[in-house]
Amino acid sequence: MTNKIKAYKKNYNYSYSSGACATIELIKARPEIVDAVHFHSSYRENDELKFLCESNSIRCIYSDRAFNSINRKENSYVFGIFHKYASTLDPDQPHIVVVNPSDMGNLGTIIRTIAGLGIKNLAVIEPAADIWNPKTIRASMGALFHIQHECFPSFDDYTTRHPDHRLFMFVLDGTLTLDNCPFCPRFSLVFGNEGGGLDERYTYIGQSVKIPLIGHTDSYNLAVAVGIGAYAFARKNGLV
Amino acid sequence: MTNKIKAYKKNYNYSYSSGACATIELIKARPEIVDAVHFHSSYRENDELKFLCESNSIRCIYSDRAFNSINRKENSYVFGIFHKYASTLDPDQPHIVVVNPSDMGNLGTIIRTIAGLGIKNLAVIEPAADIWNPKTIRASMGALFHIQHECFPSFDDYTTRHPDHRLFMFVLDGTLTLDNCPFCPRFSLVFGNEGGGLDERYTYIGQSVKIPLIGHTDSYNLAVAVGIGAYAFARKNGLV
Repeated sequence: MTNKIKAYKKNYNYSYSSGACATIELIKARPEIVDAVHFHSSYRENDELKFLCESNSIRCIYSDRAFNSINRKENSYVFGIFHKYASTLDPDQPHIVVVNPSDMGNLGTIIRTIAGLGIKNLAVIEPAADIWNPKTIRASMGALFHIQHECFPSFDDYTTRHPDHRLFMFVLDGTLTLDNCPFCPRFSLVFGNEGGGLDERYTYIGQSVKIPLIGHTDSYNLAVAVGIGAYAFARKNGLV
Repeated sequence: MTNKIKAYKKNYNYSYSSGACATIELIKARPEIVDAVHFHSSYRENDELKFLCESNSIRCIYSDRAFNSINRKENSYVFGIFHKYASTLDPDQPHIVVVNPSDMGNLGTIIRTIAGLGIKNLAVIEPAADIWNPKTIRASMGALFHIQHECFPSFDDYTTRHPDHRLFMFVLDGTLTLDNCPFCPRFSLVFGNEGGGLDERYTYIGQSVKIPLIGHTDSYNLAVAVGIGAYAFARKNGLV
């Protein structure tokens, strides 16, 4: 698969971790799925990455040509190639659910955020930005490899598979405030997409929650909203 | 100044609000600085913006040519041209201070976030991303026009001008937790840049604060960190 390095496409069964940070986390979390790591001649970082490759018997390839095909805009001098893998949610852990996220940067930032807050299960309701895209992985700073994540064709598919989770729907006019978020070992925090948030019918199938918002601001950036909401629930439930 | 529409440059004394949302907030907040609003023939939004232009006697220009010069990537069909204005911080209100932010998207998202949380004064320590750049304004969703903001050549210049503010330094190993953030009418929440955060010497000149962070995650995205930190202080101090 690595004979020809091509720009990433969603239908490939492999993807790239771009940059030293994401590639280091890839190898630390899942060395068995890494096919090779490519180094550009301008790579000048510390040796942690090379040491990790060596101790995990991962091929290091020193060639600049491959960098023409991928991440041309990202200005990174190292990338890893890895096999995509199956990942499913832990039914006994809290979940974050994002409905139709459309921006890969936001999706990656959400992954980075929730991993830092100790919430390690992410459900993505399709259609959605590609979680395996190198842009998502880079925005996650490699945290993608440390969490469990699963795509669902619809929100109903998610709730059918995880009927025991208590649903908290983040909407602008929710009734529960974050000060009163409950102790609840299996919570699902549900967020809508960047454009329109969750539509009203979601408030009928779960507890609606609001993040206070004043003045002329219509809404928060999606990753910021997840950060504030997940922080409140993670603290209340002793996750961080 | 509007005879020739050129791609934005930092040294211009005017800038652009790109997209309907930012342009509407521009006119609502500061109609007197708006020179004109350009509409593309593909513009299909509701009439709120046109009504606002009319009731504020703002020139509407219907021509597609200007769109070739600016925001080509942003795919927006409307933009406003406005004169930059002097803005200074309110010495009696809480402040957010960002030291050397380098990303315009992050800076704009921070503005959107703190405006929503009722914190309306932002200090930017230079060198920093350009707060007037159309990318920053767009990421702020036009919230830039509703806040007060000021650039300072150094952090010392900021503290000299606002000696009565109590400084809270957000660092990874801070001693104060957000659960214990105090009631304090003139707080300054200080955040480092995307790459390295605040360096250690900042912890000697203010109260260090940490956002809990676990696992393999090194740090939070800057806008997410501001969101979580500002949320905690805004709630404790009754701003939202």
